[in-house]
Amino acid sequence: MSREHGIPVDRVSLVEMGPRDGLQNEARILPLEQRLELIARLADSGLQRIEVGAFVSPRKVPQMADSAALFEALPRKGPTRYGALVPNLQGLQAAIAARVDEIGLFTACSDGFTRANIGIGVEESLIRFAPLVAEARRLGIKVRGYLSTVIACPFDGPTRPKRVAALAERLLDLGCHEISLGDTIGVGTPGTVAPMLDAVLHEVPAGRLAVHFHDTYGQGLANLLPALERGIRTIDCSVAGLGGCPYAPGASGNLASEEVVYLLHGLGMSTGVDLDKLAATGQWVSERLGHGNGSRVGRALHARALQLAAQHEIAQGECHGT
Amino acid sequence: MSREHGIPVDRVSLVEMGPRDGLQNEARILPLEQRLELIARLADSGLQRIEVGAFVSPRKVPQMADSAALFEALPRKGPTRYGALVPNLQGLQAAIAARVDEIGLFTACSDGFTRANIGIGVEESLIRFAPLVAEARRLGIKVRGYLSTVIACPFDGPTRPKRVAALAERLLDLGCHEISLGDTIGVGTPGTVAPMLDAVLHEVPAGRLAVHFHDTYGQGLANLLPALERGIRTIDCSVAGLGGCPYAPGASGNLASEEVVYLLHGLGMSTGVDLDKLAATGQWVSERLGHGNGSRVGRALHARALQLAAQHEIAQGECHGT
Repeated sequence: MSREHGIPVDRVSLVEMGPRDGLQNEARILPLEQRLELIARLADSGLQRIEVGAFVSPRKVPQMADSAALFEALPRKGPTRYGALVPNLQGLQAAIAARVDEIGLFTACSDGFTRANIGIGVEESLIRFAPLVAEARRLGIKVRGYLSTVIACPFDGPTRPKRVAALAERLLDLGCHEISLGDTIGVGTPGTVAPMLDAVLHEVPAGRLAVHFHDTYGQGLANLLPALERGIRTIDCSVAGLGGCPYAPGASGNLASEEVVYLLHGLGMSTGVDLDKLAATGQWVSERLGHGNGSRVGRALHARALQLAAQHEIAQGECHGT
Repeated sequence: MSREHGIPVDRVSLVEMGPRDGLQNEARILPLEQRLELIARLADSGLQRIEVGAFVSPRKVPQMADSAALFEALPRKGPTRYGALVPNLQGLQAAIAARVDEIGLFTACSDGFTRANIGIGVEESLIRFAPLVAEARRLGIKVRGYLSTVIACPFDGPTRPKRVAALAERLLDLGCHEISLGDTIGVGTPGTVAPMLDAVLHEVPAGRLAVHFHDTYGQGLANLLPALERGIRTIDCSVAGLGGCPYAPGASGNLASEEVVYLLHGLGMSTGVDLDKLAATGQWVSERLGHGNGSRVGRALHARALQLAAQHEIAQGECHGT
């Protein structure tokens, strides 16, 4: 087992996005108690970082309206850290009051995207970040910087790798402990992801980076390979692929956590996650949301479980018969 | 552009499985005219190798019962070559009479699997192959050897890489022009696929190999990367991911052709395939089969097309209004 900075490099940390980035883009709003059950199940499956809420306008994002109440009710005994997205100082204050373990700030590589999402350009977003990061750090709260559209923007087109690298470096300099590089519209392949990562790794060490792929074109898992090869060991994912794609309704969205765990375990890497528990949780939440399970691993394991249950029933029947 | 044996190595040949391996595992049987339209559309999208039929027992595989009539009606003007699966001498004679361009013979790495599928063990299947290959070659018909369960068997468990290598070599020695290595139940990851390929490549050159991945656990595309890295340039795939998984009803099956083309083009490789035409064909056949499109690329491009059509309608409406 090779090591880097004393950390076993075959250990991968997953950042579960389902309860926030996932549910936020679902049509059906789950009641608080079901969101809490989802989070408790995810933590029980071994996930140690879960983004669970957003302190944003309840008018704009009704799915996240009760984030304060949710944090209030979270089980805090285990090792799992809970994060929330924060857009501004008001949000930060609410997040601090809610005792979040980590906050996430959102920007992108393209003005078209930040304007559509937060009403300001990229430069303004970084200016807005500075006091937020400083205040969070003063209170010992870690800050994660989300950098979207690292491959392309639905409004502005392809993103230059050097642009991603420069922005990632600036987020790091502002005081973010980690930069999550998001291929927001899922158009990347290893052919575009690899040069983007090479440019970023020139400025930011692998240990401070996460990758956040969407499976809109089914490329999410393939895109993990160049990231893993380059030493990145933090991966964002979403149970049952929750979230869809807000830019193409009907298309697939977040990369499913189950697929990521299946791949990593197959590569001999450890995640600390119990895949069967995780897949059962994905099936459970898909049923609550009233749509099919977006994870192929989830569907395959569920189909297998149903088959085994049917065989068990037949066997039981035979026992009764004899 | 690097070259290997005079062939540009960035050109990849796709073997489209939808009309045979795909439709064979679908619940709904498409009428002959729709299968012919599917094949014509696939050829028109640029696919040059399509497996379209099987000369097998119509009782066992009703989906393929009219393969002779289908070959009779195929358009033969373009560059596309049409193949069919053949289980025995009777099937070979029927295939020859139907003027197939290529035949496929089926075996596996595990006795449990061949017994369940063709009623004999692996050794017996190879003995049965010998006169079939000889007769096909005498008539100038190429023979493709399908080798299933190269990673694991649903009955016999994991397959040793050396076992795959030895069987692939024997198929080559029998006179097969190509060996298609199938991860039939889709359980492989690059962690198991890479050592399997390394073992096989010790015995069989990359130019004589194809890979055939299933997407049961979503790993199909990720598994292509170690194959491409090792110089394999022939990939089996199925439009719209047709086929499901017969060993886990409800689970995903064949790797979708659209995802493969998207990946390869993203890697700067050429396929000769028009992705928009291919995706439209996948959407068309999914609607005929009465179920969702199994390709993520297909769903995303279809969603985009619907969006554009809606915008066009609004714009048209505005024109009428002013």
